[in-house]
Amino acid sequence: MVMPPPGGARAVARCDELGRGRFSEEPDMLFRAFLTPAHAAALERLAGWMAEAGMSVRLDGAANLIGRYEGQTPGAPCLLTGSHIDSVRDGGNYDGPLGIMLGIETVAALHAAGERPPFAIEVIAFGDEEGSRFPASMICSRAAAGSLPADATDGVVDRDGLTLDAALQAFPKPPGVPAPILGVAGLGRAGYRPGTVLAFLEAHIEQGPVLEAEGLALGTVTGIAAQLRFRAVVSGRAGHAGTTAMGLRADALAGAAEMVLAVERIATDDSSDLVATVGRLSVAPGAVNVVPGRVEFSVDVRSGEVARRDAGAARIGEALHAIAAARGLGLTWEQVQDLPASPCDPQLMALLDAAIADLGLPVRRLVSGAGHDAMVMAGLAPMAMLFIRCAGGISHNPAEKVDPADVELALQAMLGFVRRFGDVPRA
Amino acid sequence: MVMPPPGGARAVARCDELGRGRFSEEPDMLFRAFLTPAHAAALERLAGWMAEAGMSVRLDGAANLIGRYEGQTPGAPCLLTGSHIDSVRDGGNYDGPLGIMLGIETVAALHAAGERPPFAIEVIAFGDEEGSRFPASMICSRAAAGSLPADATDGVVDRDGLTLDAALQAFPKPPGVPAPILGVAGLGRAGYRPGTVLAFLEAHIEQGPVLEAEGLALGTVTGIAAQLRFRAVVSGRAGHAGTTAMGLRADALAGAAEMVLAVERIATDDSSDLVATVGRLSVAPGAVNVVPGRVEFSVDVRSGEVARRDAGAARIGEALHAIAAARGLGLTWEQVQDLPASPCDPQLMALLDAAIADLGLPVRRLVSGAGHDAMVMAGLAPMAMLFIRCAGGISHNPAEKVDPADVELALQAMLGFVRRFGDVPRA
Repeated sequence: MVMPPPGGARAVARCDELGRGRFSEEPDMLFRAFLTPAHAAALERLAGWMAEAGMSVRLDGAANLIGRYEGQTPGAPCLLTGSHIDSVRDGGNYDGPLGIMLGIETVAALHAAGERPPFAIEVIAFGDEEGSRFPASMICSRAAAGSLPADATDGVVDRDGLTLDAALQAFPKPPGVPAPILGVAGLGRAGYRPGTVLAFLEAHIEQGPVLEAEGLALGTVTGIAAQLRFRAVVSGRAGHAGTTAMGLRADALAGAAEMVLAVERIATDDSSDLVATVGRLSVAPGAVNVVPGRVEFSVDVRSGEVARRDAGAARIGEALHAIAAARGLGLTWEQVQDLPASPCDPQLMALLDAAIADLGLPVRRLVSGAGHDAMVMAGLAPMAMLFIRCAGGISHNPAEKVDPADVELALQAMLGFVRRFGDVPRA
Repeated sequence: MVMPPPGGARAVARCDELGRGRFSEEPDMLFRAFLTPAHAAALERLAGWMAEAGMSVRLDGAANLIGRYEGQTPGAPCLLTGSHIDSVRDGGNYDGPLGIMLGIETVAALHAAGERPPFAIEVIAFGDEEGSRFPASMICSRAAAGSLPADATDGVVDRDGLTLDAALQAFPKPPGVPAPILGVAGLGRAGYRPGTVLAFLEAHIEQGPVLEAEGLALGTVTGIAAQLRFRAVVSGRAGHAGTTAMGLRADALAGAAEMVLAVERIATDDSSDLVATVGRLSVAPGAVNVVPGRVEFSVDVRSGEVARRDAGAARIGEALHAIAAARGLGLTWEQVQDLPASPCDPQLMALLDAAIADLGLPVRRLVSGAGHDAMVMAGLAPMAMLFIRCAGGISHNPAEKVDPADVELALQAMLGFVRRFGDVPRA
């Protein structure tokens, strides 16, 4: 493959390069999890691209890779931009990496033009947003934002039983890049000092169908939808598949199946932006010849409106309890996560709108159904997000696709944002 | 625990002893899989009990433990009895072991009375019936019956990737028990030579509710139900749980849930002895925040009548295809196992009936919904099975329970069978 010249097409091509080979843990799909050899390989490549764009590069205590482009005054506070470099299993090339590549292209364009804003620009590649290795997500943006509680990662292990601490210690750092000693003890010290970050901007594929349906390349995000996550455990009675008559069964899987359909029906019937998903489900004992005695599954409920989300979740909880009662099954239903809606900064949204309008494009504001590092970074500095149209609204899937022309527009909007950002008076 | 004197109660107490501690792979449940340390510990204990009952003990090439009680003429063909020593995960104490213990008690009673039948009696503890470690079941009875194809175990590995060959080689044999070198190469040589086994008798808990419902301790099995097993793979489209609108989803798990309910409904509506079970189900990618793209599950269909079984399976296949089509999902539906009904030997059934009637008990004949080693052994010699009432018809579950008084009656029926068996004219 010939790498295109600097610009939106190169950002896309670089995402594609990182979508295979040594940048994935699996030969036949993209799976780049936190602190894996694939993650290390990607950081090594990113460090080269950052340096080439005129940035000094460092690794922080959470294995976030950061490139810095000095402004007119060395050591000045920065505009921080970027996204995450990890993927879900069998994911696409753009969810995450595109925001990093666009940050690099933004700096590369400024650098090529000899342009130095009155502030520094830093581009960050967060190591973990998806939570596809450890049962905790956004570890890295939480560390960068200084909002990771000291005990948040105690005893956290991956599926092989390896602790986060051991994985951090064993992580091969990109050669030639200054880096601290890695370990969970350093996560609390990885954060930006107060006042050193002026704002956080994240460019990301929409991961939804709105922009495509309306024929728009770009959108200004108004905020990130509120999420609730639940864990359901259905208990029935395991029995022999050949000898337990149908009428005598307390089949935990049949009950769970009815519940999965209830979750789907309640969200579908709502006909708002409410979405509800059972993404994980496990059956015990899980043998061909045994009636399932126990099923555990996850329920993820989201909406742009907290009230709508909560009402939907309450209806789901009621339906599940009714199904369990009707079947004589036990049900444990517990909320495991509550992420409130995270609004974007109004002044930054206005800057993005103006930068988009400058390109002759319609201004469209929309909510993000997906969570992003930006919602964590909002705790450190004012935050904005730029959405880029993606084919069919598909993400977390190898079919994820963006148009390089759209990405070029996103780059121009980011450059417009950077230039306008310099004009904003600040304390 | 004080061990009761020889008899039915001791058979039960010995099953209980093997239900915990070093006889299980798990501290808080019974899980004794083929060729594990728990299996080895159980064989060591069984070997002691067999020797104490007057038997010479050996291990065959499939790690089956065999005790032999000589008849009037040393080296004579044998009446073979026994069952399996392995369990499902989180299983009960009696499914399998009770048949072995009853064999030992039968010999112990003859030995104590100085009684030598005109044939030998062998008691066998099959190592694998449940298939809870390797993806193949009844490896051991198939080896003993000489019906294991030479290539049947090629490339068979457990969940940790260990081959059956390596597991056989590493198995710690019970001390002081003559044994061949273990390995898959020896499985084909483990079988009984033709003419050395006169008949096979297996005592087993019913694993169903019929005897209990009718207030009967014992039943004569007429045969083993016909089984079909299928593998279903539902393919949809993975997508982001927060951004994929409900109307745009092709959720493989929601489709599979509808299919699980269809399997349940079809078997229930049949109101015959048809049973159908989804016991195993796995979801990919299996992340909380991803709409499932692929679900694989098992379907097990059984009936005492092949025609009824096949008609039920056909209705299930049609229903699943209709659900997949209505939801725009892909479906692979393949039959992976077809076990024909396995009838018991009429002459042996009559002997068992007579032995039961001699005890003043009603004679009840019933079909076995579960598969048993006996159906494999039927290929080697005429076969019979004696069922013992179990509480609630429950098995494959820690709640499995038998009444020691019922087991004492089973022992008396087996002794009656042995005495009558000596009177049967044979070639």
